Amino acid sequence: MTFFVLHPQLEKDSELVTELMLCSVRLINDINYPWLILVPKVDNISDVIDLSDVQQRMLWQESALVSRALKHLFTPDKLNVAALGNMVPQLHLHHIVRYKNDVSWPKPIWGQVPSKAYSDKQLSKQIELIKTEIKTRNDQ
Amino acid sequence: MTFFVLHPQLEKDSELVTELMLCSVRLINDINYPWLILVPKVDNISDVIDLSDVQQRMLWQESALVSRALKHLFTPDKLNVAALGNMVPQLHLHHIVRYKNDVSWPKPIWGQVPSKAYSDKQLSKQIELIKTEIKTRNDQ
Repeated sequence: MTFFVLHPQLEKDSELVTELMLCSVRLINDINYPWLILVPKVDNISDVIDLSDVQQRMLWQESALVSRALKHLFTPDKLNVAALGNMVPQLHLHHIVRYKNDVSWPKPIWGQVPSKAYSDKQLSKQIELIKTEIKTRNDQ
Repeated sequence: MTFFVLHPQLEKDSELVTELMLCSVRLINDINYPWLILVPKVDNISDVIDLSDVQQRMLWQESALVSRALKHLFTPDKLNVAALGNMVPQLHLHHIVRYKNDVSWPKPIWGQVPSKAYSDKQLSKQIELIKTEIKTRNDQ
């Protein structure tokens, strides 16, 4: 793997939850939705197909792991999974828990309502909850 | 595989390009963007993780195939790949060619501008172009 530096915008918008083999798992600091991004720790990658075949398989395995953890913890009405990257070109894969009564339903969340930060206490609690669930599943 | 029927909204919004092992590849009838959806031919599936592990691997292989075909044909500034499904719950995976000068850039396309249908001639030509590229790559 080549030298990797997290994009400053992703650094600003999110907090580290845990490190997987390929990806950093980060929580977007927006209490409107439980919202994780997976960021493959590979330099100069913007589209999924820029990754090697092996890395793509790892990405989707880690995506499934994280999706199952979110589904177990939050019982979403729908999971939104997306690699957009028009604003921040560094590849990052969104995993967003959606409910039929969330502030943006049924629209995609981007550009709907301003993000709303967690309190420090809420943020630590949410990170710990998700980290524990992912680690438990990853150790199985 | 269980009995599968395409959701009527997807049927209405898109035209068949080609059939792959797991997915139907369909072109969204919107000339604003080259825009394909992959629809796994599996009944009662709304999230990627509802598919079996084998089906998930097939989905991502077919997604990579289609992404490479789009990249080769259209040289996008960015590919947007997304499974949302808030409106149409049947699992479908968007693959959208984005350019820095398209009508919605840099926003995600959903809800930005009304869709604009191809003419019959443009539609046939676009489908033939994409179908040929996907088939050539799939036969290799």
